[in-house]
Amino acid sequence: MRIVIIGSGNVAYQLAWHLHNSGHQIIQIVSRHLEAAKWIGNLIDIPCTDRYSEISMLADVYLLTVKDDAIEEVASKLNLIDRVIAHTSGTVGLDALQNTSTNHGIFYPLQTLSRNVSVDFSMIPICLDASNSDTLNVLKKLAGTLTSKIIEVNDQKRLAIHVAAVFANNFTNHLFSIAQMLLERNGLSFEIFKPLINETVRKIQNHDPLKVQTGPAVRHDEHTIQKHLEYLKNDLRFAEIYRILTEDVQQWKSENAE
Amino acid sequence: MRIVIIGSGNVAYQLAWHLHNSGHQIIQIVSRHLEAAKWIGNLIDIPCTDRYSEISMLADVYLLTVKDDAIEEVASKLNLIDRVIAHTSGTVGLDALQNTSTNHGIFYPLQTLSRNVSVDFSMIPICLDASNSDTLNVLKKLAGTLTSKIIEVNDQKRLAIHVAAVFANNFTNHLFSIAQMLLERNGLSFEIFKPLINETVRKIQNHDPLKVQTGPAVRHDEHTIQKHLEYLKNDLRFAEIYRILTEDVQQWKSENAE
Repeated sequence: MRIVIIGSGNVAYQLAWHLHNSGHQIIQIVSRHLEAAKWIGNLIDIPCTDRYSEISMLADVYLLTVKDDAIEEVASKLNLIDRVIAHTSGTVGLDALQNTSTNHGIFYPLQTLSRNVSVDFSMIPICLDASNSDTLNVLKKLAGTLTSKIIEVNDQKRLAIHVAAVFANNFTNHLFSIAQMLLERNGLSFEIFKPLINETVRKIQNHDPLKVQTGPAVRHDEHTIQKHLEYLKNDLRFAEIYRILTEDVQQWKSENAE
Repeated sequence: MRIVIIGSGNVAYQLAWHLHNSGHQIIQIVSRHLEAAKWIGNLIDIPCTDRYSEISMLADVYLLTVKDDAIEEVASKLNLIDRVIAHTSGTVGLDALQNTSTNHGIFYPLQTLSRNVSVDFSMIPICLDASNSDTLNVLKKLAGTLTSKIIEVNDQKRLAIHVAAVFANNFTNHLFSIAQMLLERNGLSFEIFKPLINETVRKIQNHDPLKVQTGPAVRHDEHTIQKHLEYLKNDLRFAEIYRILTEDVQQWKSENAE
């Protein structure tokens, strides 16, 4: 298909790269940040513009990858009549695009996309929604060239997925940062934790996380918990995170006890 | 070596199994929970007792694997004179064993050990400490038959490691539980999140977690954050965890900004 990408961030970069490699023709990148657009465009020889008025009308699909805050504003500047346009947000509603084109939808890759980390797109679920079935079919066809994992979701389910992803990905990653800091200020390398972290994730491939929880919280080992909180007494924010997550682990355990 | 294992929980089970498979002779399991001890003992034909007075004096190393709260009490019931004894806790001090034997130490495997999940012990760092260098050498020799990753740590470093492990492992696992619940009550399978979680962990193999953070918190996408908190308005504990972790992500970003 011929594709126009609007935006020049991590999602724009990853989609441009993987759609190009899947045989699609990216005919244009449109972004207010012309330098960032050109950085992507130069990799695979795509014309770029920073003027919405210059957007090509020749594409089969327009992918709006700008950040959530900017979707409505950018959408209001585009009039694509009946061209298929989809945004890539987990949170913004489908109707944010209703004045941009009659054929609008959602193309939300369920993945953490960084500029400098390559990903295997065939493993990434893509969540789709659309204003009508023809549009949904176009988006399905496009998504199907990247992955076999296609999930149809309405606004409410997509929001739930996005909130859950913040817990499972962003917050998890933040806990890794905290662990790294605690180790490094004791002269220990974060390297020693990688087997532990890999095992934590390997465990949940075939077990519910709730059922394989370990550690002082789930054991109600109050003596150890107090010792840990005492250790964190000069790190009030860490102590607060420790306290609140410990309480929640224990609450769940009591709710799920037989 | 000839080994006596004291305790019958997950750590006792995993150590008994892996030390046996590494060619050591587990000569006895001592535990107040005789049924649990026998469950392990029967797997590899080890005599078990629930009487501390019947502990064999013929072992080269005694591994005290009872939970943290119980270490001092069990240690006080044992008099091993100069036999090498080590406990396996991340948090309890070395001196908890000072009245049990002159040759005491720590043998703390840095891993999440469940009964029903097998682990590759060769990937597990083992943290060691001891009351003297002869004891340390015995523990090094024993640990070296299980893993090549041996870390010598004092009480303070070991406590830091344990606190960090609670963040990187137990709390991370709890965030996975929260994500699972949010998905399942929307009729979505936790299965769809495994690529995302695997990628979250793959990323940090070669990048500092702080540097590959993504999501609404680090982007200061306040509109999305508010929408997520609104979504969680009937889950007060989840909303509190969301709020506090978002604040901490943002605090770190501002502290590490250039």
